[in-house]
Amino acid sequence: MSKYDRKAPETLKLLETSFDNQDFETVLEIIRDLHPADQAKLFYELKADQQEILLERMEVSEIADIFDELDDKQTLVAARNLPLPFLADIIDDMDPDEAADLLGDLSGQDVRKTISLMEEPEEVLPLLRYADETAGGRMTTDFLSLGPGDSADTAIQYLRSTGLETDIPYYLFVVNNENDLLGVVGLRELVCADPGQIIRDIMESNVISVHAIQDQEEAAQVMKHYDLQALPVLNNRDQLVGVISHDDILDVLVDESTEDIYRLASVSDNALEPESRLFLQLKGRLPWLLLNTVTALIGSWVISNFGDLFVQVAVLAFFQSVVAAQGGNAASQNVAMIVRSLALGKVKQKQIIPILFRQIMVGMFLGTVIGLIVGVGVGFWQTNPYLGLVLGLALLGNMLVASIVGTLAPLLLEFSGQDPALASSVLVTAITDIIGFLIFLSLARLFLPLIQQYI
Amino acid sequence: MSKYDRKAPETLKLLETSFDNQDFETVLEIIRDLHPADQAKLFYELKADQQEILLERMEVSEIADIFDELDDKQTLVAARNLPLPFLADIIDDMDPDEAADLLGDLSGQDVRKTISLMEEPEEVLPLLRYADETAGGRMTTDFLSLGPGDSADTAIQYLRSTGLETDIPYYLFVVNNENDLLGVVGLRELVCADPGQIIRDIMESNVISVHAIQDQEEAAQVMKHYDLQALPVLNNRDQLVGVISHDDILDVLVDESTEDIYRLASVSDNALEPESRLFLQLKGRLPWLLLNTVTALIGSWVISNFGDLFVQVAVLAFFQSVVAAQGGNAASQNVAMIVRSLALGKVKQKQIIPILFRQIMVGMFLGTVIGLIVGVGVGFWQTNPYLGLVLGLALLGNMLVASIVGTLAPLLLEFSGQDPALASSVLVTAITDIIGFLIFLSLARLFLPLIQQYI
Repeated sequence: MSKYDRKAPETLKLLETSFDNQDFETVLEIIRDLHPADQAKLFYELKADQQEILLERMEVSEIADIFDELDDKQTLVAARNLPLPFLADIIDDMDPDEAADLLGDLSGQDVRKTISLMEEPEEVLPLLRYADETAGGRMTTDFLSLGPGDSADTAIQYLRSTGLETDIPYYLFVVNNENDLLGVVGLRELVCADPGQIIRDIMESNVISVHAIQDQEEAAQVMKHYDLQALPVLNNRDQLVGVISHDDILDVLVDESTEDIYRLASVSDNALEPESRLFLQLKGRLPWLLLNTVTALIGSWVISNFGDLFVQVAVLAFFQSVVAAQGGNAASQNVAMIVRSLALGKVKQKQIIPILFRQIMVGMFLGTVIGLIVGVGVGFWQTNPYLGLVLGLALLGNMLVASIVGTLAPLLLEFSGQDPALASSVLVTAITDIIGFLIFLSLARLFLPLIQQYI
Repeated sequence: MSKYDRKAPETLKLLETSFDNQDFETVLEIIRDLHPADQAKLFYELKADQQEILLERMEVSEIADIFDELDDKQTLVAARNLPLPFLADIIDDMDPDEAADLLGDLSGQDVRKTISLMEEPEEVLPLLRYADETAGGRMTTDFLSLGPGDSADTAIQYLRSTGLETDIPYYLFVVNNENDLLGVVGLRELVCADPGQIIRDIMESNVISVHAIQDQEEAAQVMKHYDLQALPVLNNRDQLVGVISHDDILDVLVDESTEDIYRLASVSDNALEPESRLFLQLKGRLPWLLLNTVTALIGSWVISNFGDLFVQVAVLAFFQSVVAAQGGNAASQNVAMIVRSLALGKVKQKQIIPILFRQIMVGMFLGTVIGLIVGVGVGFWQTNPYLGLVLGLALLGNMLVASIVGTLAPLLLEFSGQDPALASSVLVTAITDIIGFLIFLSLARLFLPLIQQYI
């Protein structure tokens, strides 16, 4: 049984030696022995010149298998230097959905040339019509279909004759002459039917489907909800144009989770990795930090309006950050819960009011507990009961604000058609920082004579 | 075609009316017309007394279908008040893996009683042995297996005779008398083979499998990597004991993403939702906020050691938070990238040094840009070049610290066997806060005479 985790390091080592010795026969042998998913993993980890050697020596179909498994960006990098006629052959051999993604990533001129050089562009062309993030962009045109009047036996003969290559081998889609989707038959049902039975009588006619222009995330939610292994995709005239397979949905769900995690942490490039190039790192991270520079300086300006206080009671400068930090943390908790519940389809628009009410309650409790502990603690530490009172009240107030902002910001973004994760820490905590400073220093000014009595 | 999103509201309304009119026939009709996944969704949204009415009137097999689709917690709530003999019948009818989860959630006494009342406990009992979060806890025992010497035709006859009920209908697992896993045959290959061909000759013998005690996340990664629709699970003697199906893996990946998002935002209960009960909200959120209270007060203590500075140069109190906030944001970006890359299996132990090196570079660039902008800006705003210099240098220093801590903390947690997301914002930003204050105020003390010249 191949366990890729354990196999990879020693395979890599043998591969390196064989490359060094220019023993390319052994190199190819090692690679051919692996599952295409592992071939792709290995290929990606090779140096550019080693990849080039492989691309020169491997069969077109082998390269197509690897390209099918690589990430879209990795495929583009690997394909960039190939002569277009060779690339056209490879794309002919790739899965239609992956082929369409690669074509879509090429420059406009290269796309036209490559398509003109392809032998069977008709499988891929319809897929180029749909945006990457739609159901149409995720589907494949490589599925099995048959007519409602066929017999089970005819269907099985058809299966045998079409060969084994398809990503969706276990479902047959039943369509009429207009390509309207009438039903679906699982291979298991087909095998268990009497040979003479007519497809119309054994098919499931209540088929769950999506439209090609729907968001891929909607398609993923439908497949997850109904535990589907394949989801038919219709065009705007309700004709069957493709099918999404279960592994595509895994990719969608994982990609969407990555996007949420990155947005929440103010990283705007979902493909960014710890080892990505410096330029990409700066591009994905600097804009948010610059935005935070603006909001942080607004906070400084708010504080500067209370400048005289610090001269009179320097101790205020010690604790203003506590109020801001606790508000920020409480708000982050809220944002994370709301963003995730929205992503999992657990929150509907009518729930805004009860959720807000619940979160205000939570904020009051959290604020009371934290406010009491910090207020009493600091009151004793600084032997200044009024400083403790001001700090406690400011914490309560800011955590209440945090609950409201942290709840409303992502919900309002979602229901106005934006990404709720844009209510990321930078934006929401900017608000809790600024309001935290304002509440704390305003209260301090109000209680100033009382606080000064104890200094 | 059922589109559950659109159908649900009007269905709910008709259902309510029928409940109000005590027209339970219509209620059952509406429910029976739905996909089990929608039945479960609807059932969960009903009031407790309405659920009770349904549980009294529905067939055992119908209830089992709904229980199969509910979340584990929801199933437990629905099952809690059922008489044990009735519950035993339902569990007999449920998918073995869901049945085992439900049994595992019952109290010890109820488990024994229920099992003794079940007709076919033997499918479920082996599953109770494995922890919920392992491959064994996710697998089902309900799969198809056959011997290596069978012919394709025998295999198809076997398929027809066993009926249609299984979660894994498209793969047949080939085992010998000792139940050692020898290979796997896809239904498509079986159908396309000659009737007389022997299974041994058409099976794929290089089967990817996991062990029952392995973590479910590892199993999910293997299935995702190889695009598997079913993953066989072996016991410690390498015998086939179960199979994980593709929909389980979706659940695992979604659950793990939720866990990461919640940990990064310092929420410790993954099941927490915006509308969860107050007690659960406090339990899942307060401990982290209390921890942050401690770290925030340590920050206050650090600042208090520079108390005399604020009396002399109050303006320092305006900008100390900028240094802390920018460090915290940069660190959160790092933590998110590392945690996600680890979860997706993209980072190996040997990569720590190159990643750290790259991130130090990134931190230096980010710190230089932000430090220059804020330093020059504030220098002009406050007409105090040395204040600008101190602020710029402190930002550079703290963002460098943020890069190192934000990178190392999750990596070290991971490679010491802990959850890398524990390096959440609260912990890592506590460090960048404290160090930020320390750098800024130390530099301010150093440059104090120069700063004071301009005041």
